[in-house]
Amino acid sequence: MFGFAVKALLILCVLGVPLQSNADERRWGTASLVVIIERQAGSVLIIDSSRHELLGRVSGLGNLTHATVKFSPDARYAYVLGREGEVSKIDLLTLKLVKKVSAGKLSVGGVISQDGKYVALSNYVPGEVRILDADTLELIKTIPALYTDGSDKDGKELPSRVVGLVDAPGNLLVFSLMEANSIWVVDAGKKEFPVIRKFADVGKTPYDALISPDGRYYLAGFLDSNWMGLLDTWRLDRVTPILAEQGKGPEVPLWKIPHLKGWAITGRLAFLPALKREVALVYSTLDWTPLTPIPISGTALYTVARPDGRQVWVDIIGKNGDLIDVIDVDSMKVIKTLNPGPGATHPQFTPKGDAAYVSLMDGGKVVVYDTATYQVLKEFPADHPSGIFFANRAHKFGM
Amino acid sequence: MFGFAVKALLILCVLGVPLQSNADERRWGTASLVVIIERQAGSVLIIDSSRHELLGRVSGLGNLTHATVKFSPDARYAYVLGREGEVSKIDLLTLKLVKKVSAGKLSVGGVISQDGKYVALSNYVPGEVRILDADTLELIKTIPALYTDGSDKDGKELPSRVVGLVDAPGNLLVFSLMEANSIWVVDAGKKEFPVIRKFADVGKTPYDALISPDGRYYLAGFLDSNWMGLLDTWRLDRVTPILAEQGKGPEVPLWKIPHLKGWAITGRLAFLPALKREVALVYSTLDWTPLTPIPISGTALYTVARPDGRQVWVDIIGKNGDLIDVIDVDSMKVIKTLNPGPGATHPQFTPKGDAAYVSLMDGGKVVVYDTATYQVLKEFPADHPSGIFFANRAHKFGM
Repeated sequence: MFGFAVKALLILCVLGVPLQSNADERRWGTASLVVIIERQAGSVLIIDSSRHELLGRVSGLGNLTHATVKFSPDARYAYVLGREGEVSKIDLLTLKLVKKVSAGKLSVGGVISQDGKYVALSNYVPGEVRILDADTLELIKTIPALYTDGSDKDGKELPSRVVGLVDAPGNLLVFSLMEANSIWVVDAGKKEFPVIRKFADVGKTPYDALISPDGRYYLAGFLDSNWMGLLDTWRLDRVTPILAEQGKGPEVPLWKIPHLKGWAITGRLAFLPALKREVALVYSTLDWTPLTPIPISGTALYTVARPDGRQVWVDIIGKNGDLIDVIDVDSMKVIKTLNPGPGATHPQFTPKGDAAYVSLMDGGKVVVYDTATYQVLKEFPADHPSGIFFANRAHKFGM
Repeated sequence: MFGFAVKALLILCVLGVPLQSNADERRWGTASLVVIIERQAGSVLIIDSSRHELLGRVSGLGNLTHATVKFSPDARYAYVLGREGEVSKIDLLTLKLVKKVSAGKLSVGGVISQDGKYVALSNYVPGEVRILDADTLELIKTIPALYTDGSDKDGKELPSRVVGLVDAPGNLLVFSLMEANSIWVVDAGKKEFPVIRKFADVGKTPYDALISPDGRYYLAGFLDSNWMGLLDTWRLDRVTPILAEQGKGPEVPLWKIPHLKGWAITGRLAFLPALKREVALVYSTLDWTPLTPIPISGTALYTVARPDGRQVWVDIIGKNGDLIDVIDVDSMKVIKTLNPGPGATHPQFTPKGDAAYVSLMDGGKVVVYDTATYQVLKEFPADHPSGIFFANRAHKFGM
């Protein structure tokens, strides 16, 4: 009896040791982890980009079509936001799904507040910003995106879809109301999350927005107006139309593409994909004047700047969809065309830009390039990989 | 006998459980940790800035006068570099000193290579760059900083002190040779670490340098020349004198202060401490023309930009040494003067700038401010705290 107990306990204790030791060996810092969406499988891969090592896969995340990933400030947690309002919180130290909640019926992304305390969601249905506690995912506040349509004589309030939600310095949240043609600003540092500014008639049907890397300028795109709206968050006084010259012709403006997240802003230059044209558009961020477009191998989906701003990597859709063009910002031309393979998309860089990760949506892998030599450093098998999210987004506004 | 064994094993197993559980509770992400030097005690404090929680103290690090801290790309490890060539590698997940080596007799800092593989040290004695494996701290390569003094007819090579060592895109290392009046560039992506450029006669007695946040421009300061040297690392073709206008008067140029690390570069503006004057100097980074200086409460030691560039915090030495001035970059004047206490120095920001940490060297604590409201969020007792190092330096060039 005692002999059995001793043996059992010994086994337990001995088993405990290698497990703990194994856990020690498999520890990692979280600052440069990568989360990669496998959209059809409803799972994500977690990779340590400091060693280009696969750590594991987290499954059961639901519909990940157009999903996005946000990070807590310490990069311990990743929040996977699905299009149907699901929020999945993943512990990046244990690779476990900590909690999953439904926070809307139809959603188009979200953001972590500057102070890291909240996950804010921009919902289509219901039309609102929903604010969750970043620790518990419990509902903290709902900000209905209601507006009055001038045509309704009773002044009935209608809900608007919310798009282009970002965080900004001063613990602000800034977002656009698609049906209300408005931009609102919320103070997330105050308990009641007051809407401190409402800018109306900024342009027709805002569909997306971005914030400049320094967190100062909020840029909204409009489906039915031929300009972009610029809000200076240092002043919060007005929304200024910019890039209006693009709307003069009969064509749809060139920057009218689904994702403003596909813009690259690198110091004094902005690089934009151009709908239907085989160029990357270039603007000065000093005054938003257009510079000479750069011919590329096809139609760009994303233009992504290497962190030092010397290169912009461009993924191509449609014709030549297997290719990635590398633009040299010094000479302003394509200096290298890579052929990662079928459905090459979403180039993303390690925090210091020494390596780039590219998803092959139709090639079943993620390819890692050395950005100085263009050598392939590593390939990871992956199930229809799409979006690639580096954990240093935790420290970037609007990311 | 068996009873005793069972009891002993039970105790061991039971003891094991709370320990492991405790370890689980005390896990943390590493992306926004802070390491704070306690220079007299030869120890560092480790704080989780995402919750403003003290995690622990690591002691036995030797002489930490003018010590600096570098981080691995994943921010799992901190490397504390002492003035006497000691390198202490700390595991930020376990708060243990992993390894400590001597890598020189007299050293003035170092840097992690862009790819994270190496710790490079700029040594005074012997005059060299010493390159260690970042994992093992084993010696990989020594690059002697030798030069020939024209006055020696035998052409004997002399060693020069090395200063201003930074990493740069393309996996480069750039540094200055104090006695050789030179700037050298090493390719750390090649196995032999070749010196690929040597710029001679760049200015007399370089004493420090910095690299712009995008990693493009290397700026060296000289003790005995009235200008700064600017190297464009995209071109690596020449070192251009800038700021020469400062040297026209009989006075020592104003930017001649010991630490170029005290400069704040925020997009299109550079803010500099000014020796002996009660102003912060301002330059345009577009063309390095001087702008109107900003009056402050005393003589600045460090000017530090909030990550969004809207504020610059300035610590004062000598008269009013207890104060920190907050410059508003929009109005270009001091909008708030804080009084943290005796020896207030080294203001440093959380990665998104919502909070600032300030060391009270003579006040025995570190004070944390909300940068939007200036409220004190937290105070940490500390033994003569000095340098404050946030882990997101892992992703910044030259940091």
